[in-house]
Amino acid sequence: MADTVSSKQPEITQRTSDYLPPRSFIHWLIGRPLQTADAPHQTIGKAVGLAVFAADALSSTAYATQESLGVLAAAGTLALGYVFPVSLAIVALLTVVTVSYEQTIHAYPGGGGAYIVARDNLGELPAQTAGAALLTDYVLTVAVSVSSGIAQVVSAYPALFPYRVEFAVLAVLFIMVVNLRGVKESGSLFAFPAYLFIAVMFLNVGAGFFRYLTGTLTTVPSPPQASVAAVLTAVTPFLLLHAFANGTSALTGVEAISNGITAFKEPRSKNAGVTLIWMSLILGSLFLGISFLTGRVHGVFSEQETIISQLSRTVFAGRGLLYLVTIWATTIILIMAANTAFADFPRLGALHAGDGFLPRQLTFRGSRLVYSNGIIALAIIACALIVVFQASVTRLIPLYAIGVFASFTLSQAGMARRWWKIGHLQPGQEIKEPGSVLRYEKSWRTRMVINGFGSVCTATVAVVFATTKFREGAWIVLVLTPVLVGIFFAIHHHYHDVASRLTLVGFGGLPDRATRHRVIVPISGVHQGTLEGLRYARLLSDDVTAVHVSIDPTETDRLRKKWATWGAGSRLVILDSPYRLFLEPLLRYVEGILDRKQPNETVTIVVPQFIPAKPWQNALHMRTADLLRKELLSRSGVVVTDVPYRLAENGKIRKAQPIDGID
Amino acid sequence: MADTVSSKQPEITQRTSDYLPPRSFIHWLIGRPLQTADAPHQTIGKAVGLAVFAADALSSTAYATQESLGVLAAAGTLALGYVFPVSLAIVALLTVVTVSYEQTIHAYPGGGGAYIVARDNLGELPAQTAGAALLTDYVLTVAVSVSSGIAQVVSAYPALFPYRVEFAVLAVLFIMVVNLRGVKESGSLFAFPAYLFIAVMFLNVGAGFFRYLTGTLTTVPSPPQASVAAVLTAVTPFLLLHAFANGTSALTGVEAISNGITAFKEPRSKNAGVTLIWMSLILGSLFLGISFLTGRVHGVFSEQETIISQLSRTVFAGRGLLYLVTIWATTIILIMAANTAFADFPRLGALHAGDGFLPRQLTFRGSRLVYSNGIIALAIIACALIVVFQASVTRLIPLYAIGVFASFTLSQAGMARRWWKIGHLQPGQEIKEPGSVLRYEKSWRTRMVINGFGSVCTATVAVVFATTKFREGAWIVLVLTPVLVGIFFAIHHHYHDVASRLTLVGFGGLPDRATRHRVIVPISGVHQGTLEGLRYARLLSDDVTAVHVSIDPTETDRLRKKWATWGAGSRLVILDSPYRLFLEPLLRYVEGILDRKQPNETVTIVVPQFIPAKPWQNALHMRTADLLRKELLSRSGVVVTDVPYRLAENGKIRKAQPIDGID
Repeated sequence: MADTVSSKQPEITQRTSDYLPPRSFIHWLIGRPLQTADAPHQTIGKAVGLAVFAADALSSTAYATQESLGVLAAAGTLALGYVFPVSLAIVALLTVVTVSYEQTIHAYPGGGGAYIVARDNLGELPAQTAGAALLTDYVLTVAVSVSSGIAQVVSAYPALFPYRVEFAVLAVLFIMVVNLRGVKESGSLFAFPAYLFIAVMFLNVGAGFFRYLTGTLTTVPSPPQASVAAVLTAVTPFLLLHAFANGTSALTGVEAISNGITAFKEPRSKNAGVTLIWMSLILGSLFLGISFLTGRVHGVFSEQETIISQLSRTVFAGRGLLYLVTIWATTIILIMAANTAFADFPRLGALHAGDGFLPRQLTFRGSRLVYSNGIIALAIIACALIVVFQASVTRLIPLYAIGVFASFTLSQAGMARRWWKIGHLQPGQEIKEPGSVLRYEKSWRTRMVINGFGSVCTATVAVVFATTKFREGAWIVLVLTPVLVGIFFAIHHHYHDVASRLTLVGFGGLPDRATRHRVIVPISGVHQGTLEGLRYARLLSDDVTAVHVSIDPTETDRLRKKWATWGAGSRLVILDSPYRLFLEPLLRYVEGILDRKQPNETVTIVVPQFIPAKPWQNALHMRTADLLRKELLSRSGVVVTDVPYRLAENGKIRKAQPIDGID
Repeated sequence: MADTVSSKQPEITQRTSDYLPPRSFIHWLIGRPLQTADAPHQTIGKAVGLAVFAADALSSTAYATQESLGVLAAAGTLALGYVFPVSLAIVALLTVVTVSYEQTIHAYPGGGGAYIVARDNLGELPAQTAGAALLTDYVLTVAVSVSSGIAQVVSAYPALFPYRVEFAVLAVLFIMVVNLRGVKESGSLFAFPAYLFIAVMFLNVGAGFFRYLTGTLTTVPSPPQASVAAVLTAVTPFLLLHAFANGTSALTGVEAISNGITAFKEPRSKNAGVTLIWMSLILGSLFLGISFLTGRVHGVFSEQETIISQLSRTVFAGRGLLYLVTIWATTIILIMAANTAFADFPRLGALHAGDGFLPRQLTFRGSRLVYSNGIIALAIIACALIVVFQASVTRLIPLYAIGVFASFTLSQAGMARRWWKIGHLQPGQEIKEPGSVLRYEKSWRTRMVINGFGSVCTATVAVVFATTKFREGAWIVLVLTPVLVGIFFAIHHHYHDVASRLTLVGFGGLPDRATRHRVIVPISGVHQGTLEGLRYARLLSDDVTAVHVSIDPTETDRLRKKWATWGAGSRLVILDSPYRLFLEPLLRYVEGILDRKQPNETVTIVVPQFIPAKPWQNALHMRTADLLRKELLSRSGVVVTDVPYRLAENGKIRKAQPIDGID
């Protein structure tokens, strides 16, 4: 430690410290603490960027076709022919969203998540709504991706089926620990599995098409038992819209790049934009390919075996090496998708907290420079969801993607409004907003139309979602989101209120000293502990009153006698308590004093408090100070202090005899 | 309130108060508080005494025969002939116990429970063992009696069978509330149902014998489904001993009168003794009668219908009025038996606590002058037992009665030792013990033999219990009792240790004043709240140091500037925290000061603590004072005080602006 005395204000000392927190189990688990100055910042290129940000989006091909199929299966095998057309509609939507986000990436080179875009262009309520929707969806991303990942493994090893919930929870906890360690988005770790997944999926689709064209593509051999409702329904527009809604889960994660533009090498907007287009192309072609082939091989919707597994073992004619690589690559990409949510959720939570809409604690970075509280919160909620929904993707999917589409809508609407503002600027004029800088652009009308169209499309999808999946679980999200927004505003109101009341702006200062400082010491007996409390009380003020609540007259008599010897002339007030209450008469006495006190008078209650050597012994004593503090919380001008008395470890043990009033 | 200044010590003031606690839900439930001076003491005669104390003992006739039968049923219908002989052995044991307790009643006119007798004559370990065994058994009395009571009702109304656990728990809670109100042992309330039970049971037995002698006694019509093990066993001595052990549950409650002698009118020992004999006669004859008739009517052991119900509807030829009166009288006496345990358990707990073997809180009498904590504890544990054992008497009975027989044994052994001590006194010599007075008596040898024989008999039964019922659940009690005794002694050791270390005997007094009082004020920002804390700190001492842990350099810079204006010349120490820890650097600083402090120096840490208006807002702030207090618990010479700052309800709201450091 070095003391450096600041030259301007001689009364201020600053100490630097190289204090390293001691080793502990936590450090073993998540790594040694990092200094604030160690915060890394490295940038990545397009190829690695694709790997880092694509996991969330690409992994959804592992379940989107299947969940779309699951809805259509209710109308019998005939309806399965609709899987591909529905997928075409979804790819069209993907195109619209990609073009829209392409514009966002260029407009917000510092990162253009829905929360920031909505905040800067639409105001606080839409921004908080977008944030609440996204936070909800990040939780669901973890639950859905991990559940789907475990479902792939279970497809390959059916004996593990009964343990899927346990495996899913373990996987979430594993990702939590990895994130608490603070994985640098170092790409190298992510690139291999991401590209392996892309390669192996194209291999599946390619091989499938080859066999389809050569006429050797069979249907799924010994298909799993179908999970279908008992009563068949007709193919209605509602059913098709429902299948479409389930399939749009393929689009989740497309927004990831717009959040992470700063991670790219310069020119970052351009690099991020190109990466987005590549990602959408890969996503769209894989999704279409899988959907098409699923129809050809007569894939069966089943809780026991995923579509990817059925497709792969049909295309590769059995559970060989290529099949196993497909399954494991899919599982890993799904786990990586959950990992993306673990990066996004705490970052968004910290943004909200920084603006005062969530508890400040979410802005604290832990020993490894990550937002530990947010990471732990996400893991707990995701695990709860997995347990409640039994790690079933089909049961989770009705809740999923509504949040994403709500935030798409708000983000694109915000962008449209931004173009409108830009169109009304003078050429050369600049407006600085927290998230970006506005400059006039000639093409603002076209761009506004593009984002506006994107917004209308995604809004339509969100409404389709809410109606078709309402009874299956979408209502939960529709109820939860406004409740969350309400909570955000309540928190904001509280912080705002506190700040405005405690500010020193216009504050005239407090009176310098109290005119009188009264000290009250409640005692239940006279012994070394209470004498220690009295000594401390006399240190604070000359105006000390000891107070004893008398429940047992014999005990009170003994106390009177001891007081004559040990009271050192201090005042003692004995309060009779005919109803054997302890706290109430004492409180009444203190409140009587507070009611009569002068404005500049301060009252301190010094409570001698016994501190046992072992925690279980606390049950054998009373916590008077805590009780008093709680009761007097609302009174001003009174401070409750507990003066601890401990049994010295090596203290002399005198001949034992009963002593009173150790409470 | 009236102030009366005591004349001898002018510094002592005593205040009497007629303060009545305000009305609340609790008062509505359990009644208005009673003054200590209101404690009632009324005495009762033999007839009422029988009613008050007999419920526990007599009610056991409702299940003793049945549980004895339940064991024998495992050997098939042939073995049922052994029910009556086993019952004869039990009645012989009852005679021995009654004669033994008759002597205890005369020796301990102030109340001679097993705990007091063992404590005065055998020492602390046997006394605590007897106490632990009795406390365990009181809990089981509640569980068994209430379960059996509900089983009677369910026998009459089989549709209620699925709800028996819920009804049993409700019954326990009802008895708890009644006891929290503080039922005076006013007899009148108890006499009617107790005598109704006795009358109706004798009517059952009498009618049964009449029909047996006139040859019109049938077997049970449409008997319930028997609850019997699938594999039949042979009639072994072990089986007979097991049946005997289960049947001895009839003896539980016989000790009740010896605990409550003070409740009787003078000459109380004589009255109590006569009552005991009457009780044993009634108990013995009813038990024998029921056991005999059960064999004649071929009563079936069943979880669905009790033996009392089967017997009564056979004797009275159907479910008529007399049958219903029998069922309800039995249920009520069983509930009253549970009520007896609710009187005994808290009283015994308070005795233990008064001697320092259980938490002191058990000696506190609640607003209605009863030991509320003990009553609530008993209700909670009994309900837990009922839920775990599904209100099944048969599953509870293996745990039951071991405690009673262990305490019988210790109590009688204590009495035998007492006679031996009396035999060795000089005529005319008197020894005062806490529980009784010892005077020479000529007949001491005979009396010692009687109690000694009683002790040996009950000890044998306890061993029979432990072995025959070991695997079914007796092991729980055999493990639990030593654990409880261990806990009692650990508690006693703690209180003893505290008393001997804090006593003022041989204590030289504390140094009068500290030479230095340092005050440290941790602040996270400069605002009205921290200024209030600083003002209070300056009230305590002139030696005030503010400490700021710097996590964010910009925030620290703002704080420096504000300090120049508002710091009022106080020292400010800024602690750099490169690992973004808040508590650790602060603790390290405080501990550095404590390590260097002089013996007479005192350090106070004044923590400005924000108190939100609503409890949920606590989650938005940090509880620094609590954390510091916990960490510094083991350090002496340091006091942690939190100075609350609140948002004044009618405070001026100034223009809001972000302010730092409201944590």
